[in-house]
Amino acid sequence: MAGRKVIITGVPGVGKSTVVNGALAKLKEEGITYQSLNFGTFMFEVAQKEGYAKDRDEMRKLDKDVQKNLQKLAAKAMSQIPGNVLIDTHASVKTPKGYLAGLPEWVLRELMPDVIVLVETDEDQILLRRISDATRVRDMEGAGGIAEHQQFNRSFGASYAMTTGCTIKIIRNQDFLLERATMDMADVLR
Amino acid sequence: MAGRKVIITGVPGVGKSTVVNGALAKLKEEGITYQSLNFGTFMFEVAQKEGYAKDRDEMRKLDKDVQKNLQKLAAKAMSQIPGNVLIDTHASVKTPKGYLAGLPEWVLRELMPDVIVLVETDEDQILLRRISDATRVRDMEGAGGIAEHQQFNRSFGASYAMTTGCTIKIIRNQDFLLERATMDMADVLR
Amino acid sequence: MAGRKVIITGVPGVGKSTVVNGALAKLKEEGITYQSLNFGTFMFEVAQKEGYAKDRDEMRKLDKDVQKNLQKLAAKAMSQIPGNVLIDTHASVKTPKGYLAGLPEWVLRELMPDVIVLVETDEDQILLRRISDATRVRDMEGAGGIAEHQQFNRSFGASYAMTTGCTIKIIRNQDFLLERATMDMADVLR
Repeated sequence: MAGRKVIITGVPGVGKSTVVNGALAKLKEEGITYQSLNFGTFMFEVAQKEGYAKDRDEMRKLDKDVQKNLQKLAAKAMSQIPGNVLIDTHASVKTPKGYLAGLPEWVLRELMPDVIVLVETDEDQILLRRISDATRVRDMEGAGGIAEHQQFNRSFGASYAMTTGCTIKIIRNQDFLLERATMDMADVLR
Repeated sequence: MAGRKVIITGVPGVGKSTVVNGALAKLKEEGITYQSLNFGTFMFEVAQKEGYAKDRDEMRKLDKDVQKNLQKLAAKAMSQIPGNVLIDTHASVKTPKGYLAGLPEWVLRELMPDVIVLVETDEDQILLRRISDATRVRDMEGAGGIAEHQQFNRSFGASYAMTTGCTIKIIRNQDFLLERATMDMADVLR
Repeated sequence: MAGRKVIITGVPGVGKSTVVNGALAKLKEEGITYQSLNFGTFMFEVAQKEGYAKDRDEMRKLDKDVQKNLQKLAAKAMSQIPGNVLIDTHASVKTPKGYLAGLPEWVLRELMPDVIVLVETDEDQILLRRISDATRVRDMEGAGGIAEHQQFNRSFGASYAMTTGCTIKIIRNQDFLLERATMDMADVLR
C-alpha cells in the first residue's frame, strides 16, 4: 500500500533530528514506522550507482544539468519506495550567491509529498544552539540572518504547497519545550 | 465578451462577505454586475452532477486524485462562464496537518484569474471579530496564529501571481473603515 | 561559451542602478564584463521588430495574450545572448489592481537565470530617497507600503527560485554603505 511521504526541513541548529527521533520513537510503540532518508545522501547513492560520481566532492563538481537530472532520478526513486517515508532536507540552503531552493519544482513533481514540515524556533535560540554546538563547524551568521532565512523558508513552503497540494506544517522546537515539539511532530506523522 | 475573473480570499472572520456585498451593491448602480460563486459550493455541485458524491460528507471522503480531478473540473467550468465572475475561496486553509493551498496549480491553470484579492486587517481585530461572532463555531486560535496565517497567504499570493500573471491586491478591512474597504473593493472590480 | 544570467531587482528608489554601475566598474578592471539589458526596453525593441507596436503607448494597449507572447519572445532572445548578461527588471510591480509578477513563469522558463538579486534597504531610507529625487515623478506611498512591497518581493523571489533553481540574493544598499553594497554586488557577478 502507498504510504505517506513527509519532508522535514529546518535551518541548521533548530534541532530537527532530535524532534524527529523523539517522534519516531513514540510512533514505533504504536506500530507506526517510517523509513528515514536524507535527500543529499540518497542522491549521492544514486550518483554512485549510475556512475556519475565516486565521492561527494566529484558530485559537487558535476555539471548543473547533470545535477538536476540526478535530483530528478533520486526523487523518482524515493517516490517509489513503499510504505511511509520521511525525507530530511532543507526548504532552502543559504549559499554565498543567495538562497537556493531545497525542493526545486522538478524534485517536487516527482516526490509529491503529503506534508512538508518547517521546524522553527526563535532566531536567538537557534543562534545560541549553534554557538554551543562545538561538534560542527558552521559559518556563523547573526540572529537577523537566521530570522531572514526562516522567513524565506515559509515563502518557499507556500510555493511548494501550491505546486504539489501538500500541506505546510510549522512545528516550533522551543527551549524547554522539546516534549511539545515531539508530540506535534508525532501528530503530523501519525 | 469575456469578462473579468476576480478571486476573493481572506482568513475567517476578516469580513470578506461584508466588503464584497457592499462593493457589488455600489457597482450595480453603475450597471456593472458580477456572478458570485463560492469555490467549495460550485465544486460540490460538479461532484453531484458527475455522480462522485451525494452529499458534502461523501465528497470529503473521496480519494485524493478524485478530489484533484474534481477541483480541475470545477475550475474549468468556472473559467467558461461568460461575463464577470467573482469567486469566493481561501488563499490557504489551516488544517491540523498544516496550511493547504486554496488555489493549487492545477486549479489556477484552469481559472487564470485577473486579480486575486487578499482581504486583511490587524490580527487583533480579527480575533475580536471571531470571539464576537456567536453564530459560527470556530476552532479558536490566538492573534499570533492569525498573523502567521495572513503572512502565509501573502506568500501563497506571490506564487499564484507568478503562475498566472494575475495581480495580488491587498484590501484592508479595518474597524470603523468599512466604507473605505468597500470603495477599494469596488475599484478592483470596476 | 555560455555566460551567467543575473537578474537585478529592487523597488523604485532603492538605488539599484548606482550599485550595479559601481560593481560593473570594479569588475571591468578584473576583465569581467556583462552586457546590461533592461527587460522593458528589450521587450519594446522586440515588439517593434516583430511589428506589434510602434511606440511604448501602443505596446501598453496590446491584448493580454499578445503581451504574454512578447514577454516570452523577449525572454527567449535574451537567453540566447552569449556571454554574461545582467537584466534589470522588477521582482513585482505595484499597480492600482495589485502586485504584478515581474517575472511570470513563462518568462522565467525561457530565461532560466543563475541568480536573482533583490536590492533592499530600510523602508524609511527608500522613502527619503524618493522624496529627495526631484528628477522623477513617482506615485508617493508611505514607508508601510514600501515595507510591504519589499516583503512581497521576497515571496516572489522564493517562487522564482523554486521554478528555476536559481539563487535569490539579498543585497542591502544602506545609507552611507554604498561601497559595501557595491562589493556585495561584485561578489555575486564575479
